[in-house]
Amino acid sequence: MNDRLAAQVAFLNEADRLKSVLRASRLHDDSRFENSAEHSWHVMLHAFVLAEHAPDGVSPTRVLQMLLLHDIVEIDAGDTPIHGDVDHAAQEAAEQAAAERLFGLLPADQGAAYRALWDEFETAETPDAQFAKAIDRLTTPLANMENGGGSWTNYNVSLDDLDARVGTPMQRGAPRIWAWLRPKLAQWFAQRPAD
Amino acid sequence: MNDRLAAQVAFLNEADRLKSVLRASRLHDDSRFENSAEHSWHVMLHAFVLAEHAPDGVSPTRVLQMLLLHDIVEIDAGDTPIHGDVDHAAQEAAEQAAAERLFGLLPADQGAAYRALWDEFETAETPDAQFAKAIDRLTTPLANMENGGGSWTNYNVSLDDLDARVGTPMQRGAPRIWAWLRPKLAQWFAQRPAD
Repeated sequence: MNDRLAAQVAFLNEADRLKSVLRASRLHDDSRFENSAEHSWHVMLHAFVLAEHAPDGVSPTRVLQMLLLHDIVEIDAGDTPIHGDVDHAAQEAAEQAAAERLFGLLPADQGAAYRALWDEFETAETPDAQFAKAIDRLTTPLANMENGGGSWTNYNVSLDDLDARVGTPMQRGAPRIWAWLRPKLAQWFAQRPAD
Repeated sequence: MNDRLAAQVAFLNEADRLKSVLRASRLHDDSRFENSAEHSWHVMLHAFVLAEHAPDGVSPTRVLQMLLLHDIVEIDAGDTPIHGDVDHAAQEAAEQAAAERLFGLLPADQGAAYRALWDEFETAETPDAQFAKAIDRLTTPLANMENGGGSWTNYNVSLDDLDARVGTPMQRGAPRIWAWLRPKLAQWFAQRPAD
């Protein structure tokens, strides 16, 4: 048991570094960029609060577990802004290597289970993973509508861009929430503050 | 459904402010103070990873739900350092008022369910709440052993203080983890860096 605990605490200590990974999104009060650890908490809160709007068959518990782990790889691979110009193959390779190293700090059985959860989230083929991905895409638009545009302004994002990058995964994983959000986004962009 | 979503999103937007509540604890790399949102994520990760060491009968799912919500009241009431000199009656009144306001933003049935979870955590009479409280007390000692003393130095904390403030809730809620941690704390204090 002590060997397992020592390995688990080594993983938990390493995970602290996620608090220093900055995202392209900003806090609702526009005071600073958000980090991936506090983002993970906020996304989990969204998934928990909005679980009643998930498609039938989604397990809120598995969604929370996926979201708890979903950004851990950014400790090594960094955050990838969805509106940024990114080499996706290189980013995916970096994330795979990060998953190997980080989940590899855990006892083997536990590391394999977490890796499977993270792989499920990444491939987004199950309803649980699709809902988790949809909620992960929801938080930045909600922030940007509060903080005056945030990453939409910095990356020159249009409503069409959002339909593709946010709408597509939300239609698939959380269509009822997207149906509620879409008119609000359209209204925001129609009244968009001048840069 | 749209009324419920609007209330839920109002709550989620307000919750963003937890990212601006600073704790007395510092990051493992000692670069800055930790905020209560990223702390919430990290505590949840600890509870998830260490769930196998929980007493029999503890529900990891309910523990995660409690920890997701456990610090929300700090948006209004602020963080209370466990080693600080605090008016506990005033702090408790402030937290009760905060719970009333914040969970009151949600649809009534949901707000009541969350308030019950938070009350259960606060009163710490169930095994789930006792494990959640124990894990909440675990993270700062792990950080302080990494960052050279952190809040122990700032608040002039002794091993006896830790036995009372960390040991007591951990003995009750997570005795196997405390049995592993206690010798490590003793060793750290025996070799404590000079201030």
